[in-house]
Amino acid sequence: MQDSINNFFKPESVAVIGSSRIPGKVGHDIVSNLVRYEFPGRIYPINPKADEMLGLKVYPDILSVESDINLAVVVTPAKSVLSALDDCAKKGVKSAIIISAGFKEGGTDGAELEIELLKRAKELGMRIIGPNCLGVIDTYSNLNASFAADMPEKGNISFLSQSGALCTAMLDWALSEHVGFSKMVSLGNKCDIDETDILNAFAADEKTKVIIGYIEALSDGTRFMKAVKQISKTKPIIIAKSGSTSVGARAASSHTGSLAGSNMAYDVAFWQSGIIRANTMQELIDYALAFSYQPIPQNPGLLIVTNAGGPGILAADAAGLSGARLSDLDSQSKEELKSHLPPTASVENPIDILGDAKADRYDIVIEKAMKSDSVGGVLALLTPQSVTQVEETAKIVAAASKTSKKPVLASFMGKEGVASGLRILQKSNVPNYPYPERAVFAFQKMYHYKSWQASPYAPPETIEADDERVSSMVSIALEEGRNRLTHEEIYEVFSCYGIRSPKSIVARDGNGAVSCAEMIGFPVVLKVVSQQISHKSDVGGVRVGVRDSEGLRLAYQEMMDNCTAAVPDAFIEGVVVQEMIERGKELIVGGQRDPQFGPMIMFGLGGIYVESLQDVSFRVAPLNLTDTTLMLREIRSFPILAGMRGEEPCDLEAIQKVILAISQLMERHPEIEEIDINPLKALPFGKGALAVDGRVSIGELK
Amino acid sequence: MQDSINNFFKPESVAVIGSSRIPGKVGHDIVSNLVRYEFPGRIYPINPKADEMLGLKVYPDILSVESDINLAVVVTPAKSVLSALDDCAKKGVKSAIIISAGFKEGGTDGAELEIELLKRAKELGMRIIGPNCLGVIDTYSNLNASFAADMPEKGNISFLSQSGALCTAMLDWALSEHVGFSKMVSLGNKCDIDETDILNAFAADEKTKVIIGYIEALSDGTRFMKAVKQISKTKPIIIAKSGSTSVGARAASSHTGSLAGSNMAYDVAFWQSGIIRANTMQELIDYALAFSYQPIPQNPGLLIVTNAGGPGILAADAAGLSGARLSDLDSQSKEELKSHLPPTASVENPIDILGDAKADRYDIVIEKAMKSDSVGGVLALLTPQSVTQVEETAKIVAAASKTSKKPVLASFMGKEGVASGLRILQKSNVPNYPYPERAVFAFQKMYHYKSWQASPYAPPETIEADDERVSSMVSIALEEGRNRLTHEEIYEVFSCYGIRSPKSIVARDGNGAVSCAEMIGFPVVLKVVSQQISHKSDVGGVRVGVRDSEGLRLAYQEMMDNCTAAVPDAFIEGVVVQEMIERGKELIVGGQRDPQFGPMIMFGLGGIYVESLQDVSFRVAPLNLTDTTLMLREIRSFPILAGMRGEEPCDLEAIQKVILAISQLMERHPEIEEIDINPLKALPFGKGALAVDGRVSIGELK
Repeated sequence: MQDSINNFFKPESVAVIGSSRIPGKVGHDIVSNLVRYEFPGRIYPINPKADEMLGLKVYPDILSVESDINLAVVVTPAKSVLSALDDCAKKGVKSAIIISAGFKEGGTDGAELEIELLKRAKELGMRIIGPNCLGVIDTYSNLNASFAADMPEKGNISFLSQSGALCTAMLDWALSEHVGFSKMVSLGNKCDIDETDILNAFAADEKTKVIIGYIEALSDGTRFMKAVKQISKTKPIIIAKSGSTSVGARAASSHTGSLAGSNMAYDVAFWQSGIIRANTMQELIDYALAFSYQPIPQNPGLLIVTNAGGPGILAADAAGLSGARLSDLDSQSKEELKSHLPPTASVENPIDILGDAKADRYDIVIEKAMKSDSVGGVLALLTPQSVTQVEETAKIVAAASKTSKKPVLASFMGKEGVASGLRILQKSNVPNYPYPERAVFAFQKMYHYKSWQASPYAPPETIEADDERVSSMVSIALEEGRNRLTHEEIYEVFSCYGIRSPKSIVARDGNGAVSCAEMIGFPVVLKVVSQQISHKSDVGGVRVGVRDSEGLRLAYQEMMDNCTAAVPDAFIEGVVVQEMIERGKELIVGGQRDPQFGPMIMFGLGGIYVESLQDVSFRVAPLNLTDTTLMLREIRSFPILAGMRGEEPCDLEAIQKVILAISQLMERHPEIEEIDINPLKALPFGKGALAVDGRVSIGELK
Repeated sequence: MQDSINNFFKPESVAVIGSSRIPGKVGHDIVSNLVRYEFPGRIYPINPKADEMLGLKVYPDILSVESDINLAVVVTPAKSVLSALDDCAKKGVKSAIIISAGFKEGGTDGAELEIELLKRAKELGMRIIGPNCLGVIDTYSNLNASFAADMPEKGNISFLSQSGALCTAMLDWALSEHVGFSKMVSLGNKCDIDETDILNAFAADEKTKVIIGYIEALSDGTRFMKAVKQISKTKPIIIAKSGSTSVGARAASSHTGSLAGSNMAYDVAFWQSGIIRANTMQELIDYALAFSYQPIPQNPGLLIVTNAGGPGILAADAAGLSGARLSDLDSQSKEELKSHLPPTASVENPIDILGDAKADRYDIVIEKAMKSDSVGGVLALLTPQSVTQVEETAKIVAAASKTSKKPVLASFMGKEGVASGLRILQKSNVPNYPYPERAVFAFQKMYHYKSWQASPYAPPETIEADDERVSSMVSIALEEGRNRLTHEEIYEVFSCYGIRSPKSIVARDGNGAVSCAEMIGFPVVLKVVSQQISHKSDVGGVRVGVRDSEGLRLAYQEMMDNCTAAVPDAFIEGVVVQEMIERGKELIVGGQRDPQFGPMIMFGLGGIYVESLQDVSFRVAPLNLTDTTLMLREIRSFPILAGMRGEEPCDLEAIQKVILAISQLMERHPEIEEIDINPLKALPFGKGALAVDGRVSIGELK
């Protein structure tokens, strides 16, 4: 299988099925690209109606080719793609790029054809990129198996894209800016090979230092995350994920016919797996350049040197916005600098060497920065003023980049006035950003990536639990045709997972309720028990603060009346009598299944604020203690939990255990579709947390 | 005075004091710029050591010039600037641009010299731009009174900048991109003429359609806001304000020596006065182009046409992010389109005309869009694919822009591959953005501006109040040397402004407290009264829920003990006995003075959530009902106030009246430095809102 993937990038021979002699036709351009960019292997154009094209012998069909073929590029109309595959298989071809359109993207008929196509490929033991794609480029094997207008220079970036048009745009830009690539893959409809396969191929490619991608929807979120988590520790992965707003998602789904999945889930999953997220194409390119050209900073302090105050402040603002840190030179360097700079220059970061600065001032500052331990990287800002030495300064910046292990970025502002400098920076692989803010944002991503790389791997936490008991309860409920667990079952599930609940007993009638309450001790809470009533408080099915037997009898009767009036056909099994927990902060912990990423675990502030304040934090399961520690701190109301203004801190450890329990429960019991503890009452330090109420929805496995 | 401002842009004659014959020197370049860009008026270089330069007669001093002089440009060393001004005054010159550096930006001596400079200018009746600036450019009067390396083309943008270097960078970019300007002013240290003066000049300039600016700190926030509020109704004002983060503010203050003011105050004030805020230089230019080249959209619906799905989704995402709205064509147009486009094309917005689209498909879609009432503007996206007609498509887009009153924006992606199209778009004033997201953001700003223009002016609301009584209380307190009002005074101030409080009486001892409580009715709240104790609850100085006389006596004694123990030298005047308000949502309303913008009014969620959730909204006074309505809705917990899940809604009108009262109080009583109502208890609809506790800090007017 590794071979069949490898053949997409390093084939010894390529057949183009459906080649054409008419320039401008896709079947012509692919052959022409193979020839033009000097693919060193054998090229076999296939076309029954021609003998020769571009100096190559044309074969009527693939079976007529005598030698072995590693890779087929198929350009024939959609309807004949299946028979082309059959021929390929007969010839022993294991890898095919299907350029042809007319599949899933074209409606129901196309979608059916695509299902056929995948089925056939599996039967034949072939791997497929596409259909409906631009093709594949590998600069180091001189392979341009695409109908793109160009071939990028050799470099260390590899790009995978769910949009062929963005490959084209990227290529055009890369050529104009002399940015080098190793591989480019247009994924097309991804009927077989998807982003994770290509990601793995990029990871294995020693020429690839930086992986970038444009993604509209993932084929398998869990598999993707797993691969990314590993790869991102050694190679930065920068992704622009479109359809990340509801407006965009609507557009994406009408484009690819695939469900975009929950945006929140993408956010969380990308973040958890160390992906560097680009919000726009501009950011994708800005970050790619920094990672491609420069080393990763070893510490977070960026030093800015500028010949003008304004741009320096803009850069400092960008640092403030993005969380990038600026760090000053050590005090000795500052003193030395002072003796070299005019008295009105500032030696604080941003270092303002003034408008009359020539290249020598940049030189001395950068030299100090490179030697200073507190400095992680340098950003050289320049505006073309009357005495500015654009070229000389560019040479100094370029030299610093060459000799230092710290990243060097530049923002030479303007256009014609700095053009000569830009050429020097470009040749020396110093990324230049037309505005200082973009350079700072790129640096911030680099340091963020460094932190990700450095963060130790922590295995998921395991909670001791009685999973057999949970499984059997869930099975019984499913056998009984229920899609919810009963009140009693829910508390038992909690108990199997070490989640404590208030004392609570189910009573069948008013007298029973009184005895229960006397056992538990007043005050108590009453809650109706009925499969037909899910939002109990909306129908008068909850009463808190019941203080004595008399009050309880009254409350019981009212509750029965209310519930029967509101849901006439409800079968009321009785009431839960529950210990009333008067103290504690109300929280919510829950889990649900995302179609792309599996169990998503939620933690947040509970009570009346849940909906409006949305003060919640999410993670994809499984979780470890680092995850839960961060989840607690991510909600804005964390200070309230931690003990603010002399209030007692909550039992944070107990809260974390509940979150871990819910995560493990969702992981181990796929029949549980959704689970909620609302409210979870967090008691003071050492006192634990109590699941006061909960809901568990279940379903048969699909 | 209008003349002295006008002379900066349309002088009949210019003297350059400190001119030089050495190219590269500022004194040379300014004269050279005047000559090179064909200033039609008289030019007088002044230099005692030369006779002639660049074909002009050089005068030894300004007094030797026979004719009148309208404008002096001063380039001499800082120390001789004052005597140069004296000479100018003698010659009757009313306007001077002081290029010379060495003033406030250079430290204490310079700052003193700058104070001298302003004083002298006022005595002499002169107006000054600078010092420490790049100069002034007016393309329509062929005036380049700056040492910039170039002169932009004529156009409708005017730029004011607190950074000369950013003028230089802007110029360089403007020339390369052929973007036209009317005026450019480098403000320098703004010792006299500031951003508001220049703004007014730009407002009066009929060649200026769009005003853009780079600002580090305002000289007078209140004056600026007042001018902007008027001007922005007819001309868009786009401002990049740097120092908008704490990191940036630190950099800015070390650069300009001026306090940046509160960032939050800038945010609020800019928003309230209709400024279009650019967060980066990139945005400043992106927005400037759209406003300069295109008409304002009349309705919010943007229609996107694209030859590739990916960029369409990116654009839709950008709409989702920025709040720009996409609107579909009417159904008849959709039907007609369907008959012209291939079956797999999408006629939903973004309209995907597919990768094989030639120019005609763009043509038909744009034609329908221009005719469709639901469409406010068009964005044409193009990626260079094999059959794409870049030039023809550009021509169609350009023609649409020319004939329609709707704005047309473009994003032709790539570089060399679309270069021929970009030239056509540029000549036709269709702004092209290299990435689709930036085009959408620009459109969103345009429609936001349209809404601002259309929003009716509402005068500030006036609350009936007993201002005399408030003034006299404040005066007495100040005379007594106090910087806080007492508990009783605060409630009386509230009462003067119609703000209700719970019943409350001050008692001097335990027995008095019991009688008070009996008058008010139990349960009550007790609060210690002492000038020395400001955070009462921190020292045990507050007791809520006191239910009877016995409990009160006990609570009183404990409170006295606690407070005396915590603040031994406190003079305890007694206790406030207050009606206990058990219902109501806890809110906070406050006011403080921003050094730049004056009274800032705050409203938000109260209680333990204030600090951690920061769920607050701010406005600069004065306020009207529109402001307060929005303030209520801006906080995230508004649904809780409005009545969520069957809870009773709060008395929103009463809350708004309290906010308006605080605003007016701050406006009319400048001695009040800070005021807080915390908590304000909002009761259900029709029941009002009660100021349960408050603080008022006062100070002598400066």
